[in-house]
Amino acid sequence: MQRDRAQDLDEADALAPIRDRFVVPPGVIYLDGNSLGMLPVGVAEAVADLVTRQWGVDLIRSWNKHGWMDAPQRVGDRIGAIIGAAPGEVIVADSTSVNLYKLLVAATRLRPDRTVVVTEVGNFPSDRYVIDSVAAQAGLTVRAVPASDLVAALDNDVAVVTLSHVDYRTGHLHDLPGITSAARAVGALTLWDLAHSAGVVDLNLSARGVDLAVGCGYKFLNGGPGAPAFVYVATRHHDSVSQPITGWLGHAQPFAMRDDFEPASDLRRMIVGTPTMVSLAALDAALDAFVGVSMAAVQAKGAALGDLAIDLAQQWSPDLVLASPRHGSERGSQIAFRHPKGYEIVQALVARGVIGDFREPDIIRFGLSPLTTRFVDVYDAMDHLRDVLQTGAWRDSAFAVRNAVT
Amino acid sequence: MQRDRAQDLDEADALAPIRDRFVVPPGVIYLDGNSLGMLPVGVAEAVADLVTRQWGVDLIRSWNKHGWMDAPQRVGDRIGAIIGAAPGEVIVADSTSVNLYKLLVAATRLRPDRTVVVTEVGNFPSDRYVIDSVAAQAGLTVRAVPASDLVAALDNDVAVVTLSHVDYRTGHLHDLPGITSAARAVGALTLWDLAHSAGVVDLNLSARGVDLAVGCGYKFLNGGPGAPAFVYVATRHHDSVSQPITGWLGHAQPFAMRDDFEPASDLRRMIVGTPTMVSLAALDAALDAFVGVSMAAVQAKGAALGDLAIDLAQQWSPDLVLASPRHGSERGSQIAFRHPKGYEIVQALVARGVIGDFREPDIIRFGLSPLTTRFVDVYDAMDHLRDVLQTGAWRDSAFAVRNAVT
Repeated sequence: MQRDRAQDLDEADALAPIRDRFVVPPGVIYLDGNSLGMLPVGVAEAVADLVTRQWGVDLIRSWNKHGWMDAPQRVGDRIGAIIGAAPGEVIVADSTSVNLYKLLVAATRLRPDRTVVVTEVGNFPSDRYVIDSVAAQAGLTVRAVPASDLVAALDNDVAVVTLSHVDYRTGHLHDLPGITSAARAVGALTLWDLAHSAGVVDLNLSARGVDLAVGCGYKFLNGGPGAPAFVYVATRHHDSVSQPITGWLGHAQPFAMRDDFEPASDLRRMIVGTPTMVSLAALDAALDAFVGVSMAAVQAKGAALGDLAIDLAQQWSPDLVLASPRHGSERGSQIAFRHPKGYEIVQALVARGVIGDFREPDIIRFGLSPLTTRFVDVYDAMDHLRDVLQTGAWRDSAFAVRNAVT
Repeated sequence: MQRDRAQDLDEADALAPIRDRFVVPPGVIYLDGNSLGMLPVGVAEAVADLVTRQWGVDLIRSWNKHGWMDAPQRVGDRIGAIIGAAPGEVIVADSTSVNLYKLLVAATRLRPDRTVVVTEVGNFPSDRYVIDSVAAQAGLTVRAVPASDLVAALDNDVAVVTLSHVDYRTGHLHDLPGITSAARAVGALTLWDLAHSAGVVDLNLSARGVDLAVGCGYKFLNGGPGAPAFVYVATRHHDSVSQPITGWLGHAQPFAMRDDFEPASDLRRMIVGTPTMVSLAALDAALDAFVGVSMAAVQAKGAALGDLAIDLAQQWSPDLVLASPRHGSERGSQIAFRHPKGYEIVQALVARGVIGDFREPDIIRFGLSPLTTRFVDVYDAMDHLRDVLQTGAWRDSAFAVRNAVT
């Protein structure tokens, strides 16, 4: 295959112009948007305005004047439009792990007579830690099974099934509609971690009957390093859901300063304290990159980018073992290969400006953000990968840093 | 008293030059630094650099290249220097309420055989909600007593005494050394909420034997709206303290991606997820305003500012009822008066550019940030207050907005 073919794919790509909505640093092929999304155009200006004019000049008055008070819900609704939630079903708050903790406790409260939490062996470790902690606090049993056994693990004892929608290493995409339906059939709730699917998968959460979800603002939503995370709760649970970190901003009347906690009637009950406005302004502005973009088209392009990468790697670099599903419909927008020298190979690629990442023990991982990644980027990256393997350039890798943030 | 006298106080004030470290908006006397601190010089540039160069260009590499990974501890140590903690005793994370939740659970685990949480009637409502939630989860009893009965409420059943160091309405400052000693004497832990004292009170936490504390980044530390909060844990508890929101970044080896949670050996075990770097960069730069500043001098100036305000208000506006302690040593750096038309009075002041705030049911509250507030500001504000009361200008108050964030 020639590079021309990749260029043809770019020319035919209806999403190609969206790349202009991002600041593209020179000399880099960035395939790590699953870890930290690129900087969208307009974010720097929005943050500067938040700092210098809103905070600096209007000071405390900005909570009303500039809509800071409503920002968690307003930005939540913008994310809701991307993940297929109804208005009012998504709110921005805290970090993904804090939100997972809140929603897991909430799930056990919604199913007080049930004793089991189902998850997958190999779920994202941070999620496992939180699951184990909540289960220990609530006296529940964790039933961790392989992905293929998830539906069989469901019975009337199960309070909640909680899964990472996309496997952080392999990119394997769970059958969200099927698992959600199977859980509902036994009266169990679903709690999905959308960290690696929000912004790249056509999620359609509400229509698929998902009960609860959390997700991350800084990966494919491009909200900036450590951007605030989000919470999704289906409208049918809004009256009954409750969570344990009962901060003032989740109160029905935050300013009444009453001694007893009464949760807000809406999804504000899932937030805790004052929103981190500087980071939230970045996330808000970053979401402009999604305006007018079809999530079905985004998911299709992500699959096509992955297909191209896999085709080229298998043709050029037979020593690599594919760790991802072969079919795009079974993947999130990321691919991975195994190689015993994976760490050194990733470092050699980074030295050439091809930025993917390494995950223990031997995973070479490439995130393929459909809004910013071109087919020629994939071609060139796989060409570099071939060259690094064939020439043994990875032996020269002298980078001291083993890890970067997921 | 003439305005000259206030000017004399400013001329004699060794902290007066520190005001130049802040962006002072024109036409405003800002007495709300206890709610949202003013913008320090250099913050806008630091945030812009974080966004455009670190995120925009260096992207994922910034976690190592620009020290993002270490930022929670590095900035924590900077706060530690302000509150009198040893290096490694403070870490930046999450919001104040989330941190209070984590530390309250941690306290109950450190004292597993005890059954009571002591707090104050009238503690900050958000703290009360969290205390009640943790107590209900852990099966503990909340013993809420008036401030004067706190020491008498301590016995061998008490796991933890948790208090807001400064009362958010009245500015009353608890006897932190005395209560901490009394708690230790019965084997109870202390957990202080320093939201309204960090940055204005000479805290000296370590020397006073405080066990646990949380605090806020956006009030007197001037870290920006919703700035990340902080956690303090005395070094003697670092090996044994544990908290329930076991996220990946609190793991001993965050990148090993192991299935079981092993807490970090240091205070990283109190953090959860990826730090909100854009907001954290603002907080980091904001702390430059404290470089070389004596906290004893800051506290003394805060007391003097409050004394001046109280003197003038009592002389000029006898209808106001002082809600704060008369003696500066018993106050944080804020004062409050009661008036049945408090809300309208505050709005009339805001219309004149004198920004304090109102708290239910009748509290007119002024924050006196010693780094930014001049004695002439206090004089002028109290002069406006006198005029608003004498002329009945508050009757014209047509502001629709009743509340702003604490």
